[in-house]
Amino acid sequence: MEQNKGRVTIPTDLDVVPQTLEIMGEWGADALRDCDGTEFPQELKNTGAKVYATYCTTRKDNEWAKANPDEVQQMYIMSSFHTATEDSLKIHLMDHLYPAMLKVNDRDDIRKWWEVTDRTTGEVVPVGEWTYEKESGDVVIHPTKRFHEYTVSFLAYIMWDPVNMYNAVVNDWKDVEPQITFDVRQPKTKAHCMEKLRQFLDTHEYVDVIRFTTFFHQFTLIFDELAREKYVDWFGYSASVSPYILQQFEQEVGYPFRPEYIIDQGYMNNTYRIPSKEFKDFQDFQRREVAKLAKEMVDIVHEYGKEAMMFMGDHWIGMEPFMDEFASIGLDAVVGSVGNGATLRLFSDIKGVKYTEGRFLPYFFPDTFYEGGDPVKEAKENWVTARRAILRSPIQRIGYGGYLKLALQFPDFVEYIKDVCREFRTLYDNIQGTTPYCVKRVAVLNCWGKMRSWGNHMVHHAIYYKQNYSYFGIIEALSGAPFDVSFISFDDIRNNPDLLKDIDVIINVGDADTAQSGGENWIDETVITAVKEFVYNGGGFIGVGEPAAHQWQGKFFQLDDILGVEEERGFNLNTDKYNWEEHRDHFILEDSEGEVDFGEGKKNIFALPETEILIQNHQEVQMAVKTFGKGRGVYISGLPYSFKNSRVLYRAVLWSSSAEDQLHCWYSCNYNVEVHAYVKNGKYCVVNNTYEPQDTIVYKGDGSSFELHMDANEIKWYQI
Amino acid sequence: MEQNKGRVTIPTDLDVVPQTLEIMGEWGADALRDCDGTEFPQELKNTGAKVYATYCTTRKDNEWAKANPDEVQQMYIMSSFHTATEDSLKIHLMDHLYPAMLKVNDRDDIRKWWEVTDRTTGEVVPVGEWTYEKESGDVVIHPTKRFHEYTVSFLAYIMWDPVNMYNAVVNDWKDVEPQITFDVRQPKTKAHCMEKLRQFLDTHEYVDVIRFTTFFHQFTLIFDELAREKYVDWFGYSASVSPYILQQFEQEVGYPFRPEYIIDQGYMNNTYRIPSKEFKDFQDFQRREVAKLAKEMVDIVHEYGKEAMMFMGDHWIGMEPFMDEFASIGLDAVVGSVGNGATLRLFSDIKGVKYTEGRFLPYFFPDTFYEGGDPVKEAKENWVTARRAILRSPIQRIGYGGYLKLALQFPDFVEYIKDVCREFRTLYDNIQGTTPYCVKRVAVLNCWGKMRSWGNHMVHHAIYYKQNYSYFGIIEALSGAPFDVSFISFDDIRNNPDLLKDIDVIINVGDADTAQSGGENWIDETVITAVKEFVYNGGGFIGVGEPAAHQWQGKFFQLDDILGVEEERGFNLNTDKYNWEEHRDHFILEDSEGEVDFGEGKKNIFALPETEILIQNHQEVQMAVKTFGKGRGVYISGLPYSFKNSRVLYRAVLWSSSAEDQLHCWYSCNYNVEVHAYVKNGKYCVVNNTYEPQDTIVYKGDGSSFELHMDANEIKWYQI
Ligand SMILES: [Mg+2]
Ligand SMILES: [Mg+2]
Ligand SMILES: [Mg+2]
Repeated sequence: MEQNKGRVTIPTDLDVVPQTLEIMGEWGADALRDCDGTEFPQELKNTGAKVYATYCTTRKDNEWAKANPDEVQQMYIMSSFHTATEDSLKIHLMDHLYPAMLKVNDRDDIRKWWEVTDRTTGEVVPVGEWTYEKESGDVVIHPTKRFHEYTVSFLAYIMWDPVNMYNAVVNDWKDVEPQITFDVRQPKTKAHCMEKLRQFLDTHEYVDVIRFTTFFHQFTLIFDELAREKYVDWFGYSASVSPYILQQFEQEVGYPFRPEYIIDQGYMNNTYRIPSKEFKDFQDFQRREVAKLAKEMVDIVHEYGKEAMMFMGDHWIGMEPFMDEFASIGLDAVVGSVGNGATLRLFSDIKGVKYTEGRFLPYFFPDTFYEGGDPVKEAKENWVTARRAILRSPIQRIGYGGYLKLALQFPDFVEYIKDVCREFRTLYDNIQGTTPYCVKRVAVLNCWGKMRSWGNHMVHHAIYYKQNYSYFGIIEALSGAPFDVSFISFDDIRNNPDLLKDIDVIINVGDADTAQSGGENWIDETVITAVKEFVYNGGGFIGVGEPAAHQWQGKFFQLDDILGVEEERGFNLNTDKYNWEEHRDHFILEDSEGEVDFGEGKKNIFALPETEILIQNHQEVQMAVKTFGKGRGVYISGLPYSFKNSRVLYRAVLWSSSAEDQLHCWYSCNYNVEVHAYVKNGKYCVVNNTYEPQDTIVYKGDGSSFELHMDANEIKWYQI
Repeated sequence: MEQNKGRVTIPTDLDVVPQTLEIMGEWGADALRDCDGTEFPQELKNTGAKVYATYCTTRKDNEWAKANPDEVQQMYIMSSFHTATEDSLKIHLMDHLYPAMLKVNDRDDIRKWWEVTDRTTGEVVPVGEWTYEKESGDVVIHPTKRFHEYTVSFLAYIMWDPVNMYNAVVNDWKDVEPQITFDVRQPKTKAHCMEKLRQFLDTHEYVDVIRFTTFFHQFTLIFDELAREKYVDWFGYSASVSPYILQQFEQEVGYPFRPEYIIDQGYMNNTYRIPSKEFKDFQDFQRREVAKLAKEMVDIVHEYGKEAMMFMGDHWIGMEPFMDEFASIGLDAVVGSVGNGATLRLFSDIKGVKYTEGRFLPYFFPDTFYEGGDPVKEAKENWVTARRAILRSPIQRIGYGGYLKLALQFPDFVEYIKDVCREFRTLYDNIQGTTPYCVKRVAVLNCWGKMRSWGNHMVHHAIYYKQNYSYFGIIEALSGAPFDVSFISFDDIRNNPDLLKDIDVIINVGDADTAQSGGENWIDETVITAVKEFVYNGGGFIGVGEPAAHQWQGKFFQLDDILGVEEERGFNLNTDKYNWEEHRDHFILEDSEGEVDFGEGKKNIFALPETEILIQNHQEVQMAVKTFGKGRGVYISGLPYSFKNSRVLYRAVLWSSSAEDQLHCWYSCNYNVEVHAYVKNGKYCVVNNTYEPQDTIVYKGDGSSFELHMDANEIKWYQI
């Protein structure tokens, strides 16, 4: 039975009131996003639809920010490297930074909060050997060690909210005043903001849902002197600092803070860095404090009988939805932007909220909705890409954003979204409350574990990077694959090696010595023996890129005996290598006609003598398998996302767990088509992920099969 | 004035006595290599030609070896890695080793000379926790740590000289008794060998030159169970050990020996490994001891009024011709095999001998001299390749080996070699005693310095390896380039930073953390500040591959400020990179039409903002330049040897030393043709390195020029 209404949010505006009502009917929308900064139309207050109000906690109040400059948000910045060629060295702090965005904080004690570092030796320069010249904005180091390199780590106030600045630059806004971000964590601002929130609630009775965008700390985003993005880290904590906060941190952890804990040699603890103890301590502290403060706001919202929703982006730092503190906040919902399957699961996998909502593309903005534009194409791609992941981990609502009047000019778009809304409701009804059938339990192992679930190999949200798309492909494939996927850390294994007993296949993906592959964690005997025992007793291990790689005791690949491969870094040239024969007829490659796109791949990988090479190019192994005791290892040099590669990974998981005989269970022989079963609900679906019709054979749970023709993008539902 | 005779050595044999005389006349040969194991023909004793006798010190006396099994040569071997899955672990030592070649040494105290290592922790397993089962040949470890990996380092006797075995296997010799190698360093064998040498000299009055092949210790060469090469290191010291020698070593250095000093985690201290203090101590010790003993033999030869010549190969370990001890031995000559320019300079650059002789290819063996074969082609390639290097660092003699009767069947070959001999004598006459004009002083900087001059990036003598040809190309290009080339080590800089004052350009070539690029030496403040100061004051620095790369204090490329590039290893993805513009019109690329073959190249290299990129492929920088103070840096991802790339390197050296204006000095505009000037002798030559005619413009020392047509391979001599 198909529902015609519900589970859909649309934007509205003053100039499209009748059309809003019409679209609500067409699409079955039951929620409206209010009009930023204007009065909400009376006609829409009484539709029965929920009304969402966007709410910013940390900006849009320059009056307050200017009156309280000491409580403006701050970030840690490291100057570029400077070589001393004379007895004195000047470093101009604001070099290569956008002047209007940042203001050096010399209000607080710079001798405590700044750090000048001799990067040649790694030593801190004594505070007596440098001064800050306020007028010139230079740090002057004297005396220097000649031909040593120096950096200055310093605090700066965020005088222009980076997202506001980005929008202003991209849209070429003229004469808009930069929005200053203030720090709700600090006492005066906290009191002010709580008061402001109550005021808002007092004056917006018609609002049902407060949609926080987001809470307190912006992810790291810096612009250069030309207003170009200079540095971005969607997971970055470096803009969540202030002496006020850091003093609390010192008290809690019981050791003195150092700017280097945030600066991290200039790498700023990005997710590729193996996290230090101190940085993990800082994240823990922030998480607890942010959760506590967010709860205060959520409680106020609840006091007014309204729902509290978090938009997952912008000022989301410290919220960490996969960590234990999150549930304590009491949020009703999380809304996230849908870029692909992995970004969908970034919020669809969140526990402890009543519902999650996906904000789908395209935005109703002129860049897509122009005369001659094809918004249907973009909508289809976005929906079909996300649908794979929704079928594994359903969201409860979908929604759109932007200017409704733009969408109305494209009747085929309106029609397509109507289909999407209907399809989503059917999907929701069929799968609600169940766990889809999972053929295997797969754990992605890295330094971050559950905290960065699905966020591995992301830098900016859903953005392509040449050096990681070949690894991110694994995560994207997993986002829609019929596995029970978990993300575990080396600490998890150290704390409880038995956790591996609940896993069928471990996946380790990334470049050597990154937090993703694990680096020195692989020479921790607890970790490596636990993993070896796991595989020896029948577990599967899939390594991608430079898995478990760290130079130690005669090996770079510490699991060479499981993966069957090693990297030639010059140290093994003396050893003759005779194993180059390919075995393209392997189970893993059966649907790929022996060809796989490895993306960037890897150079200089060779196989051990007992290894079965599946694919090598010019004596560089790209894929290989090996047995180890009762278990099996699979090496893959890289695996960008595609339907074909998704199938390669699926087969690799089955083969590595010695489960080739489980292939024909809720399975489509054509890899463009996937099958998902919701056994508890007695339902299964077959879904065509492509924009063309497909033919396939569908295998059910008992191995019985039938031929099937699928229209482009089609999803078909069946009773089991 | 052309000489018709001299400077040429030919092989002879009993069956070609008249033909030997004829060829001596044709080629102007003045030396004969005797016939191995047979009586030298009387007719050839009185020709006036010198007679060379090949002499092996360490083999061809199985009777002795069998009577003195305790003084058979030994080598250290590490078993493969074994994972303990139970309480006990057995490791069969001879696994994957050729049974007839090696015999486990359990004669000496295995508790002292063997080592069982837990490779998971890097710790030595106490001797009480393992035993050796003589009958099975297994080491049994008990108790083990489960899922730890173990190796056994042990000594084995060399029961079949590896070169003798190689010849037997390749030529499919039947029924030849394996030659056992005995250790002349040990007391009984030493006495025996000195006596034997005197006997030989007593009975070979007609011999003028004793050609030692070589002295005492074979470079590392091991064969697997299928008699295939398993491990080879032309520079390897692991077959130069015995308890007798190692006890002396302990006494000299004053600390206890550990097998790990030789085993080196199984990497066996190959030339890519950054050498440990202990291994350098061991090499120093061996060098001194080998030199002392070689001197004893040379002195005996001199006592008999004959010359002592060393063949540089086989048992050459410890001789180290570029080190100070070498001259003390008193050798008259060194003969070396000529594979290419770099291998020529391996011996042509030796100081402290009266003359050097090149043994050219092809050997007069049936693999080349068969009906339909083209020995002239091989001879041309070999001669023309070597000639580049000879023109920079002349040898005093050339020679051939093999069966003369085979060569005689190819009249065109006999004719071509006649030309070569004539050309060589002319060349020798024109350049003798002078240093050719050097446009710049270039130093190759690595961990080995002068000891491995020209041997950088060699594994087996002159053999291609996929992972190093792109680096070796630099060395080969230098072997024939008009530079004063030196090889310096990081220790040299530490001992005397001022040595850089005598250098114009430093070159650092290789993969990260190898002995060739230097690894952790780059975080030694003495080294890095010396190099930075050198460049800042006007020096040039050319980095190839992953130069000066070691992860430290926010950088992988420690000289990124000089080279202008860094490698993306995941840690800089957050930083936006805007500098991708190419500048293919740069001075360095002017003869290359903007195209360069980088060989294997490098992935993931990006440029700093101030860097000038010359070439990038798909946002991976292959070549870039940057200024640093008054100096300049050049980054190249790889540079396999070719005439074109040789020119690229030449221009890079000039540009990096700010000497573009010195281009038109002893220079050919066509890079297939080179110009070498011998100013003291008033001579210069123009040489066509290709097998086709070439046209060029030749620039003389004063910048004046003339057009020139060259025949294929031609060399033209001029008066200055
Ligand atoms: Mg790498
Ligand atoms: Mg490398
Ligand atoms: Mg240009």
